[in-house]
Amino acid sequence: MTSPEAREAAVLEAVGERRELVNEAIPEELPIRRPERLYEASRYLLDAGGKRLRPTVLLAAAEALADVETLSTPYREFPSLNDSTVDMMAAAVSVEVIQSFTLIHDDIMDDDDLRRGVPAVHKAYDLETAILAGDTLYSKAFEIMLETGADHERMVQALDILARTCTKICEGQSLDVSFEERDDVTTEEYLEMVEQKTAVLYAAAACLPAILMGADQDVVDALYGYGLDVGRAFQIHDDVLDLTVPSEKLGKQRGSDLVEHKQTLITVHARSHGVDIESLVDTTDVDDVTEAEIDDAVAVLEEAGSIDFANETARELVDRGKERLEVLPENDARTLLFQVADYLIERGY
Amino acid sequence: MTSPEAREAAVLEAVGERRELVNEAIPEELPIRRPERLYEASRYLLDAGGKRLRPTVLLAAAEALADVETLSTPYREFPSLNDSTVDMMAAAVSVEVIQSFTLIHDDIMDDDDLRRGVPAVHKAYDLETAILAGDTLYSKAFEIMLETGADHERMVQALDILARTCTKICEGQSLDVSFEERDDVTTEEYLEMVEQKTAVLYAAAACLPAILMGADQDVVDALYGYGLDVGRAFQIHDDVLDLTVPSEKLGKQRGSDLVEHKQTLITVHARSHGVDIESLVDTTDVDDVTEAEIDDAVAVLEEAGSIDFANETARELVDRGKERLEVLPENDARTLLFQVADYLIERGY
Repeated sequence: MTSPEAREAAVLEAVGERRELVNEAIPEELPIRRPERLYEASRYLLDAGGKRLRPTVLLAAAEALADVETLSTPYREFPSLNDSTVDMMAAAVSVEVIQSFTLIHDDIMDDDDLRRGVPAVHKAYDLETAILAGDTLYSKAFEIMLETGADHERMVQALDILARTCTKICEGQSLDVSFEERDDVTTEEYLEMVEQKTAVLYAAAACLPAILMGADQDVVDALYGYGLDVGRAFQIHDDVLDLTVPSEKLGKQRGSDLVEHKQTLITVHARSHGVDIESLVDTTDVDDVTEAEIDDAVAVLEEAGSIDFANETARELVDRGKERLEVLPENDARTLLFQVADYLIERGY
Repeated sequence: MTSPEAREAAVLEAVGERRELVNEAIPEELPIRRPERLYEASRYLLDAGGKRLRPTVLLAAAEALADVETLSTPYREFPSLNDSTVDMMAAAVSVEVIQSFTLIHDDIMDDDDLRRGVPAVHKAYDLETAILAGDTLYSKAFEIMLETGADHERMVQALDILARTCTKICEGQSLDVSFEERDDVTTEEYLEMVEQKTAVLYAAAACLPAILMGADQDVVDALYGYGLDVGRAFQIHDDVLDLTVPSEKLGKQRGSDLVEHKQTLITVHARSHGVDIESLVDTTDVDDVTEAEIDDAVAVLEEAGSIDFANETARELVDRGKERLEVLPENDARTLLFQVADYLIERGY
């Protein structure tokens, strides 16, 4: 049994190796062309960084399925299961482009000023350009997926999952907004919202290689299930980090979810255990809240067992997600998918 | 030779017959489901009306290609050119859904309050919901196209044209915005912008039946060219109407393009003939402009020959677009495509 630190170091190295390749591919798939301002705005967040966790899941799932030594096979000409090749990197970039489109539009909706340490696109440019940049990335994701070169039947399936994933993300975001005005959200409702808002894109990333390579449906389903489980765990852990990581490290005010009345698994649990969530902090403006207020609120939530409950739920989801990978051949890439799952709920920020 | 009035009555009847069927299909393809508020906002503009010109072009092109009596063949099980059937109505709804998504986001960008006589979606709901409603329609258009049941090769081509069309619409909208701050836009630049912003969706509507039914590439290309030509003519005529139709009939302030410094073929022509466009009206606020100011401005533009130039350019484009239809069999549906082309530049609003 390795230590959490050693595990994290290993997974970060593997993620970093793939991130470099993804970062090279992004300008190839999405060159700055006329009208330049539109494409610069579209690339702005993609170029600002990001861990590339979803592309990593996609590329690792491809390697696990093909049962090849990790990083030994060119992603641009990746062997499918029937003699042809697939541009797996295009699929990975497509998923990251969808993620970037949702971040640009989400930041407008939440009127968030900062993202990845840089101004949000609607602040760096303007509202019009940010809406259009998101819309451009949306169709570009489909265009890029169309460049994978998969056979037509598989391509139709891949585009189908991409379209359904985008619809579900919108539905999840809509539920998230509507929850802010409710005080009776259940654990089931929260998990449904998180599945749609966050987990479906992990699920798409995990199962797309199986679709594009022509794997059996049970393999596609298992990988989709893995993504749904670890994607929900990722979001739950994000909600815990919002309360427990210092503001400097978080890159935004700690406890902002509480201040803005965002529903999280923690608040849903606490409320059902008698905690008056709305009275935990006095303000609804993140600029007015004090660290002491957040400390007191976190103490109440810990006392109610709500943070433990969130951590336990995330761990259960990750363990279930990992079990689903038993359909894959035993190899280093499968191990990486295990490690990524653990990392999603062990990462410090 | 029939009179313009008789021609307009004939085309409006044919458009109206198809509109009824499209209006029935929209709630079938896009039912109000959970989260209801999101889907209600997504359907809001679609339900508020619209002529359904693009779906009409699509359905008429399908009938012309199949060489069947108009309205005699069920659109939901439309014969392709190789023994199978295609749900042509799904394709027609998909194109209208794209149009609706662009209107919702355009109204946010232009901060327009009214659309089709009802409040814009971001006014009837809110900014967040309007962005999300547009995003939902975006992916739904792909989902609906995937329900046409065309064979996989044709489906991939159809989704490819849909994605590229959406990208071009964003590019055109971005050019349109950037032109507002320039005083040296050329006729060629204007026509390129209008091709991307407006005409590509007509082009997609016209050629999608050929793609889905398995027609030869030269037929696909000819129909695409027809759509590009008549779509640009449609936008040029729209620009003329903005100056010449009374505000009550237009549903918004006459001359608003001039006030807001929108580039049109008319202003581009006038400027190149020595007219100082920026000084034609004193205000940049449509609420402050007087009818007399607009009358004077229109007189100057008429004197410069700019309105005639726009009308002539639109007529040339329509004539060229109609010529392209010679690849189609001679039948009533082809005649309808001719009539729609004429209608696009003869309509009074």
